Amino acid sequence: MTDKLKGQLKFLAEADKMKNVSRQTLLMDKSREETDAEHSWHFALMAMTLYEYAGFEVDLDRVIRMAIVHDLVEIYAGDTFAYDAKGYEDKEQREREAADKLFAMLPGALAKEYRALWEEFDRMDTPDSRYAAAIDRLQPFLSNYATDGHTWVKHGVYADKVYARMAPIETALPELWPFVERVIKENIEKGRIKRP
Amino acid sequence: MTDKLKGQLKFLAEADKMKNVSRQTLLMDKSREETDAEHSWHFALMAMTLYEYAGFEVDLDRVIRMAIVHDLVEIYAGDTFAYDAKGYEDKEQREREAADKLFAMLPGALAKEYRALWEEFDRMDTPDSRYAAAIDRLQPFLSNYATDGHTWVKHGVYADKVYARMAPIETALPELWPFVERVIKENIEKGRIKRP
Repeated sequence: MTDKLKGQLKFLAEADKMKNVSRQTLLMDKSREETDAEHSWHFALMAMTLYEYAGFEVDLDRVIRMAIVHDLVEIYAGDTFAYDAKGYEDKEQREREAADKLFAMLPGALAKEYRALWEEFDRMDTPDSRYAAAIDRLQPFLSNYATDGHTWVKHGVYADKVYARMAPIETALPELWPFVERVIKENIEKGRIKRP
Repeated sequence: MTDKLKGQLKFLAEADKMKNVSRQTLLMDKSREETDAEHSWHFALMAMTLYEYAGFEVDLDRVIRMAIVHDLVEIYAGDTFAYDAKGYEDKEQREREAADKLFAMLPGALAKEYRALWEEFDRMDTPDSRYAAAIDRLQPFLSNYATDGHTWVKHGVYADKVYARMAPIETALPELWPFVERVIKENIEKGRIKRP
């Protein structure tokens, strides 16, 4: 076996750890928190299923690949909760170091592809990454909708933070925005999201 | 919200149950069994990462979509263990009924796409589905490699069954076949796979 193939198999074994990275998001049946691997899969399926509602032109196959690799750096950097201001302070550096370590196992072309997809996703400055960001945020939103606002309640999240976090949906999935707004309002009224 | 979009959101909530479908395959750290959602994600990442070794021309983006949807019917039909002869007797009918129920939530074009990808995957009669089948089998194989042959030992699996199950790898990923053969032989010698 070549060293190149050995590195790829090592990378794929390392990727197994995505099944051990726990997120704040609950499964919809409230039985436990979901893992990064499960989130990434659900993200890909949602991108496929809601594609017709994209508010601008999107390359769906690129978005699906983005979904598959967008959280890989969390194997070493851990999942940073969306509303954790402190965790976000050093998120960028932690994740850059994680990417350096993880992608070094791959041949150049693959390392470059995965890193570029992840960086584009994080920058949110292209149609594909803006659509991807909207789906990435809608996925835990639907979980919160199904679980009585679990992470909002648990972490005492304020309404302005939820609106800011969900904002990409307004342009990327305009037909879904009224639903998102309605759910946020209902959860404010029920005291599950804090009033600003 | 239109009835169509409602159906799509209902489908995506139903898909959350893929995180509750447990497989025989252990996580590589042996902490628990993996879920169908985790397997589907790992399958997609492996298809991307090993694509250069495909033994024939493959449309990788179609294979990735196939990975995402190939096990959805197990939400209702359950996971049938690869070496469970009895489970395979009624697998086809159980899964067809599951597909009818699940895909009915989707608009026609999406239902058709997902069903066609799943059926093609199961038939294994195109280059894309043959490559997909090889990856789908390599994924738990790598887990068994990392976990002292966990599912082989647990279920007392015979060597001829393992060779038959892994056969698609020989043509779809020819450069990986010597590794697969070596691992099978080592596990026979260690008594983790039964001699025929």
